[in-house]
Amino acid sequence: MAEKLKPPRGFRDFPPEVAILRREVISRVVRVFERYGFDPLDTPSVEYWETLAGKYGEEAESRLIWRFTDPWSGREYALRYDLTVPLARFIAGRPDIGLPFKRYHIGPVWRHEEPQRGRYREFYQCDADIVGSPYPEADAEIINLTVDALRELGFTEFKVKLNDRRLLAGVFEEELGLTDPLRVYRIIDKLDKIGLEGVMRELSKTGLGEPLVGRIAEIISHRGEPLEELSSLCAKHGGNPRVSEACKHLEGTVELLNDTSSVELDMSLVRGLDYYTGPIIEVVLEKPRIGSVAGGGRYDNLVELFTGKHTPATGVSLGIERLIDAGIELGIYSVSRKTVTQVQVIVLDWSLLKHAWATVKTLRDAGINTRIDMARANEDSQRRKARKLEVPLLVYVGAEEVKNNTKTIYDTRTGERKVVPQEELVKTVKEMLAKTP
Amino acid sequence: MAEKLKPPRGFRDFPPEVAILRREVISRVVRVFERYGFDPLDTPSVEYWETLAGKYGEEAESRLIWRFTDPWSGREYALRYDLTVPLARFIAGRPDIGLPFKRYHIGPVWRHEEPQRGRYREFYQCDADIVGSPYPEADAEIINLTVDALRELGFTEFKVKLNDRRLLAGVFEEELGLTDPLRVYRIIDKLDKIGLEGVMRELSKTGLGEPLVGRIAEIISHRGEPLEELSSLCAKHGGNPRVSEACKHLEGTVELLNDTSSVELDMSLVRGLDYYTGPIIEVVLEKPRIGSVAGGGRYDNLVELFTGKHTPATGVSLGIERLIDAGIELGIYSVSRKTVTQVQVIVLDWSLLKHAWATVKTLRDAGINTRIDMARANEDSQRRKARKLEVPLLVYVGAEEVKNNTKTIYDTRTGERKVVPQEELVKTVKEMLAKTP
Repeated sequence: MAEKLKPPRGFRDFPPEVAILRREVISRVVRVFERYGFDPLDTPSVEYWETLAGKYGEEAESRLIWRFTDPWSGREYALRYDLTVPLARFIAGRPDIGLPFKRYHIGPVWRHEEPQRGRYREFYQCDADIVGSPYPEADAEIINLTVDALRELGFTEFKVKLNDRRLLAGVFEEELGLTDPLRVYRIIDKLDKIGLEGVMRELSKTGLGEPLVGRIAEIISHRGEPLEELSSLCAKHGGNPRVSEACKHLEGTVELLNDTSSVELDMSLVRGLDYYTGPIIEVVLEKPRIGSVAGGGRYDNLVELFTGKHTPATGVSLGIERLIDAGIELGIYSVSRKTVTQVQVIVLDWSLLKHAWATVKTLRDAGINTRIDMARANEDSQRRKARKLEVPLLVYVGAEEVKNNTKTIYDTRTGERKVVPQEELVKTVKEMLAKTP
Repeated sequence: MAEKLKPPRGFRDFPPEVAILRREVISRVVRVFERYGFDPLDTPSVEYWETLAGKYGEEAESRLIWRFTDPWSGREYALRYDLTVPLARFIAGRPDIGLPFKRYHIGPVWRHEEPQRGRYREFYQCDADIVGSPYPEADAEIINLTVDALRELGFTEFKVKLNDRRLLAGVFEEELGLTDPLRVYRIIDKLDKIGLEGVMRELSKTGLGEPLVGRIAEIISHRGEPLEELSSLCAKHGGNPRVSEACKHLEGTVELLNDTSSVELDMSLVRGLDYYTGPIIEVVLEKPRIGSVAGGGRYDNLVELFTGKHTPATGVSLGIERLIDAGIELGIYSVSRKTVTQVQVIVLDWSLLKHAWATVKTLRDAGINTRIDMARANEDSQRRKARKLEVPLLVYVGAEEVKNNTKTIYDTRTGERKVVPQEELVKTVKEMLAKTP
């Protein structure tokens, strides 16, 4: 395809068969979010640059945010990088909103990534957040919602990894005395790719002594049943106030989970964004291995950056792009539904257009999604097009049908053919559509 | 509100009560579009600048398109200005798509407008287009769909103005010999604001002689029942091939309209975008007078700009921002639904959290949108918050309820109060919700 006919690199067109699937996936996510009593909120695609600046961390700040200057006003704008910082800005601007505030937001975000499989420059996030609660039940609600959403989307084999920024800070900074923990986190983050030995090798290269590398390796190997791992961690490092605070909070959270079988504490989970302050989660599918499909955590200081007023918050973001890719790979989803059309009216003789047009109207007025060819094609071509789109029913309008005041209905799925009086058309079409062959 | 807490000028936050209404309006539009057999298509928010350049006309090109240069690649990008040019680019890139192609697309577009009432820098368009049909039935389908959508949205008093670019060209350029018709169109476009006398005065100022101004005034006064106006126009100017072609096409279109009572031919309708080639339409509400709420037309040459291959197309764009504003003003819509939550579980004693949590789960598992307070507030504060959001039902969990294995349900709309055994909770809640007081 000529370059000028493509969307920009890293951006995508979604033709009907993909758009229909995406919409179905999104509507299932909405169903779960609303069942949990989250309300929709929309914020704009564009923010002032200064709204986003200083919230995400170095990489996003310097490289990943799409920012631009308006030549007329000279102001700097940016396309939103996630849905969380705009939420914090919204909350900060509405002191009367009433907390706790539960909202969901589903929409595109933009990142200046190097495009690759599963990584795009425009992609949808499905976020649910609770603002105004410092309690473990808010974090538990977010995890329960995440697990329910994944189940509703058809996934059964996944792991919810759980950790806490305070555990990381308490153990790595305070207990081990690491002065540059961010550098250590970045190496730990590669665990999936390079394995524990690889992580240890890289840690040694940064100049850390062997005993310290050994202790780090031991700590990040804490993964497993959350309450067990927490009690073992707390036994070792519970004297540290941040560790004991985190242990207590996470225990309170885990006790309110509907199902802990898919949840594990994982001390190697670090997550990239700067704004997290407490529990953090990440969901990975057991197969296919396409990386994290959801992530989130507590960010108690983000609203405060705008207002100076402490406002605790926690939330999750589902990445439906990867979930859809994974669902297709697993055979849970297919891009097989090519049209929303339920009936194609086939015109056997174009001098009967007005008669056919009236039939189309009758069907549409009854709520049936109906098409009629717009190119005055011959019967064969009309039928071929309808079958290519897998339209379930064809309704024929020809001289015979007009003369007898009947319609011929053909089910493309079963081969069944019926001739019915005009007045029974809608009823019969509905009955035939209701049968899923 | 401090500047830094606001969305950028001309951009908007939609809090839940507005987002809920917008979603309802959009879902009604989708229902109509799908009934007409249009399928969803999504194209990205960002396009290469050269994709949009040279399609809309001078004003959009020079001032209204949000464009920016990527500092890394040096490439010029733009936020889409409408949904039509991206559609043309998509079609041009898919020679195997199968024509006629019917798609709808609902999403935001961006224009660098000076913000004012009803005019925003980011706003939603709801577009339906048919690509690949040169026939009047395609234009008729678009008009029927537009009228049905407005009805489905609750509007009854509106006018669909109809004209044809070929009528304008045939009469103004060829018959009247206007060498700069665009300048004349721009003056005619002010008719609603300055009246016929104002238009004539401004035309005279451009140096046009009195007889010519008089003939223009006469021509643009052609408005009324479409077939009558067409036959009168054709009688006068039908010798002109463009006029006669347009008359024939429009007559074919009007004959296929389900309801012509709201349609009028209006020779003063010019429309702004460069890409229109045939019939053009615009919908205005009779009241409130908030300008055009839908517009569209035929653009037979747009795809050709990308491919060199002639590909006729026609479509419409509904402006839901103004429709929502108008609907609220008319009292058709209200922003009264503040939450999707159906039940708030009220916790009388926070030591019973786990019991209440289980009740919440029971309700959610039954598909009922349920909340529980996340701030461990006292009963009074929980109730006040729920009533402020107008949550229909409250379900109380207290020592009494736990002891007797019952639940107390309170209907905030009617004041009705019921104590039911736990096992009848879901059934009773569903029954009470089904009653709309």
